Amino acid sequence: MTAHKIRFLPDNKEVELESGSTILDAAEKAGVSINSLCGGNGACGKCKVQVPDGKAHADMESINYLTKDEVKEGYVLACQTKIHMDMEVIVPPEGRLEDEQILMDEPIMTYSQPEKLSVPKVPRDPLSFFEPLSQKIYLVLDEPSQTDNVSDIDRVIRGLRKKTDYQNFEASFKCLRGLAETLRISGWKVTATIARSCSIWRILQIEPGDKSDHNYGLAIDVGTTTVVAQLVNMKSGVVVGVAGSHNLQAHYGADVISRMIYACNIDSGLNTLHVSIIENINGLIKTLTEQKGINREDITAIVAAGNTTMSHLLLSLTPCSIRLDPYVPTAKIFPQINASEISIDISSNGIMETLPAVASYVGGDIVSGIISCRIADRPEIRVLIDVGTNGEIAIGNNEWLVCCSASAGPAFEGGGISSGMRATRGAVQRVKIENGRVYYETIGKAKPRGLCGSGLIDTLSALITNQYIDSDGKFRSVSKSERIIEIDGEPQFIIAYSHETETGKDLTITESDIINLIRSKAAVFAAIKSLINYVGFKFEDIHTFYVAGGFGTYLDIPNAISIGLLPDIDIKKIQFVGNSSLMGARIGLLSVHALDRAAKIAAGMTNIELSTYQPFMDEYVGAMFLPHTDRNLFPSVRC
Amino acid sequence: MTAHKIRFLPDNKEVELESGSTILDAAEKAGVSINSLCGGNGACGKCKVQVPDGKAHADMESINYLTKDEVKEGYVLACQTKIHMDMEVIVPPEGRLEDEQILMDEPIMTYSQPEKLSVPKVPRDPLSFFEPLSQKIYLVLDEPSQTDNVSDIDRVIRGLRKKTDYQNFEASFKCLRGLAETLRISGWKVTATIARSCSIWRILQIEPGDKSDHNYGLAIDVGTTTVVAQLVNMKSGVVVGVAGSHNLQAHYGADVISRMIYACNIDSGLNTLHVSIIENINGLIKTLTEQKGINREDITAIVAAGNTTMSHLLLSLTPCSIRLDPYVPTAKIFPQINASEISIDISSNGIMETLPAVASYVGGDIVSGIISCRIADRPEIRVLIDVGTNGEIAIGNNEWLVCCSASAGPAFEGGGISSGMRATRGAVQRVKIENGRVYYETIGKAKPRGLCGSGLIDTLSALITNQYIDSDGKFRSVSKSERIIEIDGEPQFIIAYSHETETGKDLTITESDIINLIRSKAAVFAAIKSLINYVGFKFEDIHTFYVAGGFGTYLDIPNAISIGLLPDIDIKKIQFVGNSSLMGARIGLLSVHALDRAAKIAAGMTNIELSTYQPFMDEYVGAMFLPHTDRNLFPSVRC
Repeated sequence: MTAHKIRFLPDNKEVELESGSTILDAAEKAGVSINSLCGGNGACGKCKVQVPDGKAHADMESINYLTKDEVKEGYVLACQTKIHMDMEVIVPPEGRLEDEQILMDEPIMTYSQPEKLSVPKVPRDPLSFFEPLSQKIYLVLDEPSQTDNVSDIDRVIRGLRKKTDYQNFEASFKCLRGLAETLRISGWKVTATIARSCSIWRILQIEPGDKSDHNYGLAIDVGTTTVVAQLVNMKSGVVVGVAGSHNLQAHYGADVISRMIYACNIDSGLNTLHVSIIENINGLIKTLTEQKGINREDITAIVAAGNTTMSHLLLSLTPCSIRLDPYVPTAKIFPQINASEISIDISSNGIMETLPAVASYVGGDIVSGIISCRIADRPEIRVLIDVGTNGEIAIGNNEWLVCCSASAGPAFEGGGISSGMRATRGAVQRVKIENGRVYYETIGKAKPRGLCGSGLIDTLSALITNQYIDSDGKFRSVSKSERIIEIDGEPQFIIAYSHETETGKDLTITESDIINLIRSKAAVFAAIKSLINYVGFKFEDIHTFYVAGGFGTYLDIPNAISIGLLPDIDIKKIQFVGNSSLMGARIGLLSVHALDRAAKIAAGMTNIELSTYQPFMDEYVGAMFLPHTDRNLFPSVRC
Repeated sequence: MTAHKIRFLPDNKEVELESGSTILDAAEKAGVSINSLCGGNGACGKCKVQVPDGKAHADMESINYLTKDEVKEGYVLACQTKIHMDMEVIVPPEGRLEDEQILMDEPIMTYSQPEKLSVPKVPRDPLSFFEPLSQKIYLVLDEPSQTDNVSDIDRVIRGLRKKTDYQNFEASFKCLRGLAETLRISGWKVTATIARSCSIWRILQIEPGDKSDHNYGLAIDVGTTTVVAQLVNMKSGVVVGVAGSHNLQAHYGADVISRMIYACNIDSGLNTLHVSIIENINGLIKTLTEQKGINREDITAIVAAGNTTMSHLLLSLTPCSIRLDPYVPTAKIFPQINASEISIDISSNGIMETLPAVASYVGGDIVSGIISCRIADRPEIRVLIDVGTNGEIAIGNNEWLVCCSASAGPAFEGGGISSGMRATRGAVQRVKIENGRVYYETIGKAKPRGLCGSGLIDTLSALITNQYIDSDGKFRSVSKSERIIEIDGEPQFIIAYSHETETGKDLTITESDIINLIRSKAAVFAAIKSLINYVGFKFEDIHTFYVAGGFGTYLDIPNAISIGLLPDIDIKKIQFVGNSSLMGARIGLLSVHALDRAAKIAAGMTNIELSTYQPFMDEYVGAMFLPHTDRNLFPSVRC
C-alpha cells in the first residue's frame, strides 16, 4: 500500500496514511477534532471539510449534504472521502469540535441568586459534612516493644482510631506489602491514605513522613459531548483547577444512541469507546497536574458522574441492551474500583466511584444534579431538568422522587434543522424581532453560520410573538414580512441575509424546522407535565425549577416559556444550575454522606417509562402547539 | 512414535506413553506419586523404581544413587529412564511420595477414638454448618420485559436472593464485564459464583448454563517442611484428592529462622521464597486437577493455613521483624485476596483466605488446629500441641484460650544430633531395649542410616528405663552394657553395629545428643506447664490433649511421657490429630462460620511471650531432668 501525507489546516498537523483510508481516519490519527454526529457513516453531513485543488471529490451520497457552491469549492464529507494522494485539508470553523462551549462548572446565575450549593465548612446537613472519600492521616506511632508488640498493621489501625472518629478499618492487600520497611525507615512517622468502601475505611497505602497536605481528588462529569474534570484539594475542599475537553468518543457518534450502535455493531467498538474516554480523562489529569504542579500519585480518589451509557462505557460495560426495548443496563449501582483497573493515571492505589443511575435513560449525572440542588434534602417540591437529545426530568423532595426521560430529538442541538448547528463560533445564539427588524448575536461575534439551540428558541418565540407563524407553527402569510420567502414551496424566514453571513447565503428557518422544534419542545413539556400530574401536583406547587447543563445556560427563559418549552411559572423560581453533574460529583468526593445519599436516591427514585405511558402520549399531542393547546397553562404568554 | 504400556505396581495403574518418555512422566500421567525432591533432574536419587525382567537399565549417572544389589534387582531412577517397550514398574515404598512422611490429613487414631472432626451433613454447631466459602448457584432468570426491566446485575441478585438465604450481595467489577452477553447468550440460565467477603456475598463470576456441579476448593497446609493441598468438592464437601510436596523453600533454609534470614539478608530473597511457595502450590494444583480430570478454572476458593512466617511468605510480606525482638509481624489478620494477585493458578476470579495468626510464633496453623479440635467450642479444657523446631501450645475452652510458643530447637527433627535425620527411608523410628538387646524398626525396612524424632525419644526412654543413663542424661557406667562405648572421651550408646547399618559405621547416640534432647523436651514441657499454671489449672483438669503434626503421628506416647516430654496424664486423653492445620483449612473452606470463628480465636487468644516470662525459665530448669526434677509430676514413670 502507498502512504500519503495529509496536512490539516488551520492546525497545520500532518500525518501519513495508507491509500484508501478516509480523511476522518487521518484526522483521528492527527488528533484533529472533526465534528461527526453519525459516527462516520455519511449519515449526518456534519464532517464537511474543504480539499482545495480538486484533490478529492464528493461522491453522490455526500452531495446531498453539500450545496452546489460547496461542491465547487472542494467540500467533501471527511468520513466518505478516501485518500489517494498527498493533500491539504481545511477544516472549516463549523466542522471543528473544540470551539464548542464546554460547561466547566457551577451555577451561572441569571434570574435569581441560587442557594449556596457548594460544600460549606460548617456542617449543616448530612450532605454538607466535610468528610472526604479519601483522606490522608499523618500518624506518629509508638515504636513496638516487648509489652506492645501488636502487628504493624494493627499499630497503624490503632493510630488511625486515635486520630479519627472511625472504628472500622480494613487493610488492602497492597498496603501490607512493604509496610514493615516503611514504618521502620520513617521512624514510625507515616501517612495513611484511607478511603471509604462500603461502610468501612480501607487503608489504601502508607507513605513515609507527613504527606497529609498532598491529597487530591477528581470530580469528573463524563458528558456525551464534553468531559470536565475538577481537581480538588481533599484536605481543604478547595477546587484547585478545572479542565474540560470534547468527548473523544464523538469521533464514533454524536449522541448516546450512535455510540451504542458503534459499541455493539463494530468489532471491538466497546473497547474503542472505552479507551477514548480513558484517554480523555488521562489528558485532563495531565493538563491539571502539570498546570498546578501536582504529582499524579497524590490524586487518591475520583468520583465520576455520567448518564447510564457513558458510565457503562467508562467502565467498559456493554451498553447494547440499554438501547433495545426493554432498556436494561448491566448495572445501575457501580462498584468502587481501583482507578488502575481501567488505566486511569492517578495514584496506583487510588479509587474511583461512579455515581449510580436510576434507569437506562436517567443516569448518575441526574442523581448528581439532585444532590447538587439538594432536592432530596428539603421538604419543598423541586424539579430538575436537563435537556439534550434526551430531556431528563426529576421531581421530588425529601420524601419522594420521580423521574423520567423523554426523547427530545437533536433539534435543540442543531440536528435535523436546515441551518442548525452546535453552539460553536458563528452560531446565532440570541435573536430578537422588533418592528420587522431582526437583531441577532453570534458566538465569537463572527459572521452568522447557523442557529444553535438558544437561537432557535429565540427565533421561534420571536416568530410567534410577532405573529409571523400560527400556534401550529405554520407561517400565516408571506405578505406579513419581506423576510418570509418561499423556496420550492416551503415557506421560510430569513434571519440574516446572504451579504451578512459567512456562507454568503441567506440564513433561514423553514416551516419543517419549526415543526421539528415544536416536536422537541412538546416532548420535553409533556414529560414535565406528565410527571407533575403523576405525583398529583400543579406547576404552582413547584418551589424551584432547576435547569441544568449547557442547554440551560444560554437559554432565554421568558422565550422558552413563550414557546411552551418550560412551564409558565414565576421566572424567579427558575434557576440555571450549570454543570450540576460535575458539582454533585465534587460534593460526593468531599462528603461520603453525599455518596450514601446518591445511592439512596438512585435506589428509591421512581422512574416512569414514558414510551409506554399513555398519559404522556396525550400530553405530547396537547403540547404540539405554540405555546400549548390549553392556553390556560400559559396565562402570561400573549400571542 | 510408538506407544508403550506401562503398568505401575502395587497401584496396578496402566498408562500408554510414547517411546522416549521417562518413567516419571508415565507415573505423573498415571497419577502414581513418586518421590522426587529435585524435580526430575537426576540430582536427588529419590525416584528409585524397580523394573523387573531387565527391561530397563540404570545409566552411569543414576548408579551413584543405587547400591550394587539395587542395580542387580533392576532398580533405576524414574526420571532418568526412558521407555522403549511395554513394562511393569514397581514403586518401592520409600519411593512413593505418600510414604514419605507428608502428613496429608486427618487424625490417625492410636490410643482412643477421637470425636468426629469432619464436617457433618446435619448442622450441629456453628462450625459444622455446611456453608462453603464459595458457592456456585444455578439461576433460571425471567427475561426482562417493559414491566420488569431492572438492571442485569440486579436480576442476578434477585435470582440469588430467591435461591439462597442471603440478602447482601455485591457485584465484583469483573463479573459485570460481559454479563449482558452471558445472560442473553445463555437464554437467562446462568451460574453465579459467590464468595463470602467480610459479611457480604461477592459475586465473582457468571458462567452460562448450569455449572453448579463444577465448583472446587483447595485447603492448603503451608508447612515449613511440607505443603499439602486437599481438593474439595464445594457442593458436596467431599475431599476429591490430596497431594503433598516438600516445601521448595527448603533449598533456602530448613526452618523458619533460616528462611527469615534468607528473606531479609539476600537480595530479592523475599521474592525468591514467595515464588517458591507459589510454585509448590501450583504444582500441587496441577497434580490434583490432572489426576482428577478437573478444570483448574473450576477451583474458586482457597483456604490456606500456615505459621506466621509461612503466611507472610505466601503473601509476599516481609517476615524480617518477626525474627527480631519484639517480634512484630506485618499482619496477623490477612485480607481476602484474589488468588491471581499472587499468581495462583485457579479460576482467574478465585479467592484466597489465609487463616489469621495469634502472634509471630503462633500462626494460622495453630488457629486451624484449634478449629479442627473444636477447642473453642466446648466447655472442657483441652490442649493442642504441635512440636517442630518450635513447640506451639494452646489451651482453653469455649470461654478462654491461651497459647505460647517455645523454641524447642531442631533436635526432634534430627538437627544437632550426631546421627539424627529426618523421618525418611532408613531412619530408625522405633527403638526398644530389653535385657540388653536392642530392637529397632526403620522407615522402609531399610538398613538403618540414622535416628529420627520418634526413634530418638524411644532411645532416650529406653536408656533411662534400662538405667544406662541418669536422670541428668549422663551415662551411669560404661560397664553397664557392652554397647556403651567412649570415643574421644565422650560416652555413647550403640543402637546398631556397623555391619547392620547402611553406612557401615556404628549408629550411636552420644551424651551430647542426649543433653540436646533433654533441652528440647524441657522447653516443650516447661511451656506446657507454664501455660497450665498461668490459667490456674492442673494436668488432671485437661479433658483432652491433642498432639498435632508429623511429630505426633509416629510418637510412642508412654515413651514421650517417660522422658518428661508430655505430661503424665491418662494416655487415653492423648490424641494424635494428624495434620490438624490442613483439616481446619478444609473446615473453613466448607463453613464460613468456621472462618469467623478462626478470626475470633486469633483476636481473642492470649499469647504468652515465654522469652520474657520468668515462670517459664524456672519451669525449664526444673524440666532439665529425666523425666523431671519434681518426680511427683510423673507418678506413673518408674526409673
